[in-house]
Amino acid sequence: MIILFTDFGPDGPYTGQVRAVLQQQAPGIPVISLFADLTPFDIQAAAYLLPAYAAGFPPGSVFICVVDPGVGGVRPGGLVRADGRWYVGPDEGLFTILTRRAHHVECWELPHPATASPSFHARDVFAPLAARLARDGSFGAGPVASAADARPEWPDELHQVVYIDRYGNAITGTRAVAVPGAATLNINGHALSRARTFSDRPSGEAFWYANSSGLVEIAVNRGRADRQLDIAVGTPFEVS
Amino acid sequence: MIILFTDFGPDGPYTGQVRAVLQQQAPGIPVISLFADLTPFDIQAAAYLLPAYAAGFPPGSVFICVVDPGVGGVRPGGLVRADGRWYVGPDEGLFTILTRRAHHVECWELPHPATASPSFHARDVFAPLAARLARDGSFGAGPVASAADARPEWPDELHQVVYIDRYGNAITGTRAVAVPGAATLNINGHALSRARTFSDRPSGEAFWYANSSGLVEIAVNRGRADRQLDIAVGTPFEVS
Amino acid sequence: MIILFTDFGPDGPYTGQVRAVLQQQAPGIPVISLFADLTPFDIQAAAYLLPAYAAGFPPGSVFICVVDPGVGGVRPGGLVRADGRWYVGPDEGLFTILTRRAHHVECWELPHPATASPSFHARDVFAPLAARLARDGSFGAGPVASAADARPEWPDELHQVVYIDRYGNAITGTRAVAVPGAATLNINGHALSRARTFSDRPSGEAFWYANSSGLVEIAVNRGRADRQLDIAVGTPFEVS
Repeated sequence: MIILFTDFGPDGPYTGQVRAVLQQQAPGIPVISLFADLTPFDIQAAAYLLPAYAAGFPPGSVFICVVDPGVGGVRPGGLVRADGRWYVGPDEGLFTILTRRAHHVECWELPHPATASPSFHARDVFAPLAARLARDGSFGAGPVASAADARPEWPDELHQVVYIDRYGNAITGTRAVAVPGAATLNINGHALSRARTFSDRPSGEAFWYANSSGLVEIAVNRGRADRQLDIAVGTPFEVS
Repeated sequence: MIILFTDFGPDGPYTGQVRAVLQQQAPGIPVISLFADLTPFDIQAAAYLLPAYAAGFPPGSVFICVVDPGVGGVRPGGLVRADGRWYVGPDEGLFTILTRRAHHVECWELPHPATASPSFHARDVFAPLAARLARDGSFGAGPVASAADARPEWPDELHQVVYIDRYGNAITGTRAVAVPGAATLNINGHALSRARTFSDRPSGEAFWYANSSGLVEIAVNRGRADRQLDIAVGTPFEVS
Repeated sequence: MIILFTDFGPDGPYTGQVRAVLQQQAPGIPVISLFADLTPFDIQAAAYLLPAYAAGFPPGSVFICVVDPGVGGVRPGGLVRADGRWYVGPDEGLFTILTRRAHHVECWELPHPATASPSFHARDVFAPLAARLARDGSFGAGPVASAADARPEWPDELHQVVYIDRYGNAITGTRAVAVPGAATLNINGHALSRARTFSDRPSGEAFWYANSSGLVEIAVNRGRADRQLDIAVGTPFEVS
C-alpha cells in the first residue's frame, strides 16, 4: 500500500499526477490519500501528525510525505524505514518526530536529482522511489545513510494545534498518553477538561479528549472548536 | 463495490483511514466516495439524499453511511438490507427514508462495540463490517433484527434544501415525481417554474428541474442559485 | 487508465457517480482524478490546461473532460484521438488547444443522446464511451468525423491566468517555451522576472517560472501570489 501525506490540496492536479506515476510504475498497488490538506509550508505541524496517523498502517506500507517549501533548493530528500514502514519525502524535519518515537529506524539521504523538475520532486523523485519500494522493497543505488533527526530542538510533545479537521476540531501535536486525565488545557483564555467523547458533554461545550489516533484533540460537542475558541493551526496551549 | 456516503470532508484523514481498513480487510474490492461533503451533524438532510443517490448502484453494493453527531454515545449502529444493497452506519434516522421507499427491507441493530474508539466508529465498526459484507455477504454474529424506521415523523417529501453542490445548485429532499410539472416553487420570496435543463433558460435565470438523480433541484443557468436566492442547506420552500 | 478532468468540485457526488459507471463498465481499469476543480463554466481556461497536463499520460489513456455549461442543449459531444490518447466530453472549445498542438489528430462528433439525463452527460454519455475506449479502444457506431478546432479565434498562447492552485500559485495559458527567459511579465501593475524555482527567491518575492508541466506560472516564495498580486482566473498579463 502507498499512502499520500501531503499539502497538495483538494482536487488540484498534483495528487493526480503523483497517482499517475504510481499507477504506471507500481501497477496494482493500492494508493490511499491519508492527508491532502496539511497546512502548506508548515513542516512542524505535519511532523507531529505523521507518527500518530501512520501507526495504523501495516508493515511494508510506503508513505509519500510532502510539505516542501524548499523544493528545488539545497534541501535533501530523505528515505526512512521506521518500524517496518517506508517514508520518502523532503527532509527538513518532517521525519523528526517519527524517527524519534520509532523502535527501529534507518535513514538515508537521497542524491540530488539530475533531471527532476525543480518544482515537483513528489512526481519526479519521491513517487518513482515509492513505487519501487512498494513493488519489491528495494531502492536501488544512490541513497546514503544519514542521521535520523533533522530537528533535535523540537519537543517530544508540541503544545500547539497542528490540524483543524472538517468539523472544526483542533488536533494537537501532543500525545494523549503524555497528559494526565485530570489535566486542564488552557487555550486562548479557555480552560478545558477532559471528556471521553463528544456525546459525554452538552451541545456547545468545549473539552479535550484522546482522539482516535491517540492525540490530544480540542472539540465542541455539535459545534466548531476552531470558531468558538478562535483557534487555528499554530495556536499554543498550556497544560495545568 | 463499497461506497462512502459521509460528512468526512475534503481530503482530511478520515476517508483515508476508512479506506485503509477496507483495503486490508476487503482487498481488491473497489471503494468509491459518493459524498464526502454531507453537512456535518445534519442527519435529516443526508437521509433524503441517500435513496436518490444509491439507486444507481448494483445489487450487492455496500454503503458506509456516516453522519454521526452522537458517536460514542448510546445511539445504536444499524445494518440495513434494502432492495439488494447493504447499508451500515449510525442509526439515528439516516436510513429512515431509504427503508420507507424500498420494496424489500431487513434491518438489524449492531451490538455496542467493546473495543472501538469512542469517536471513530466508521473506522473501527462500520468499515470492518462493510468489508465482510462486500467479501462474502455475511455479517457474523451480533446484529439483532430491529424496526426499520427510526424517524416515522419525517415526511415522505421534505420541502427543504438538503445539499448545495459545487455550482451552487440546491438539491432538495423532494422527489421530482411528487411535484406536478406545472407547479411553482416558492423559496425566499422567489417563484420558480420548471425547466427541462439549464440551457433551456437564459443566463442568470433561476428555475427548478428534475435532477439526474430524480430530486427537485433549484438552479440558475450559468449562475449560483445559492447566492442569487440566498439559500442554504435547511432553507424551506413551498409548492403551489 | 481513465483520467477525470472536470469542474465537478471537491467531494460532491458527481465524481463518485462517474466512477461508479466506470467501475461497472470498465472493471479493473484504474481511474485517476487529475483536476476536479476546474473553474465552473470556464471552457477556455480548461482548454489551455488540458494539453499541458495530459502530456504526461501514456498512449491509450482516456480522458473524460467536462466543463459543460451547455449540458442538455444543442452543443455536440466530442471524441478526439490526439497523439495516441483519447478525449471525450462536450465540444464547445475544450479540445481546441489540444488538437491544435497535437501531431496526429482525429475528431468525431457524438450523436445527440436519446436517453441521457439532460443535466448529466458525463455519467450517461461520456463515462460509458470512455469505459468502452479503455476496454478495447473501440467506440461503436454513431460518432461522425468532424473538424478539430471549435474555437479557431483563440490564441495559441493565452496571456491570462487559467488556474489558481492550492498554494495560491497562478498557472497561465502560456507555454514557457514561448516566452524568452529574460522577459518581464506585467500583471496588475507588478513586473515579474523569471526564476528557476521557488527557493531561488527570498521569501515573499513574486516571480514567474516554467512550472513542472511546462506552463508559465506566477508564484511567490512561501507566499500566495493570488492574494499578494490580487490575481484570479481570468486576470490578463503582458510580456515585455
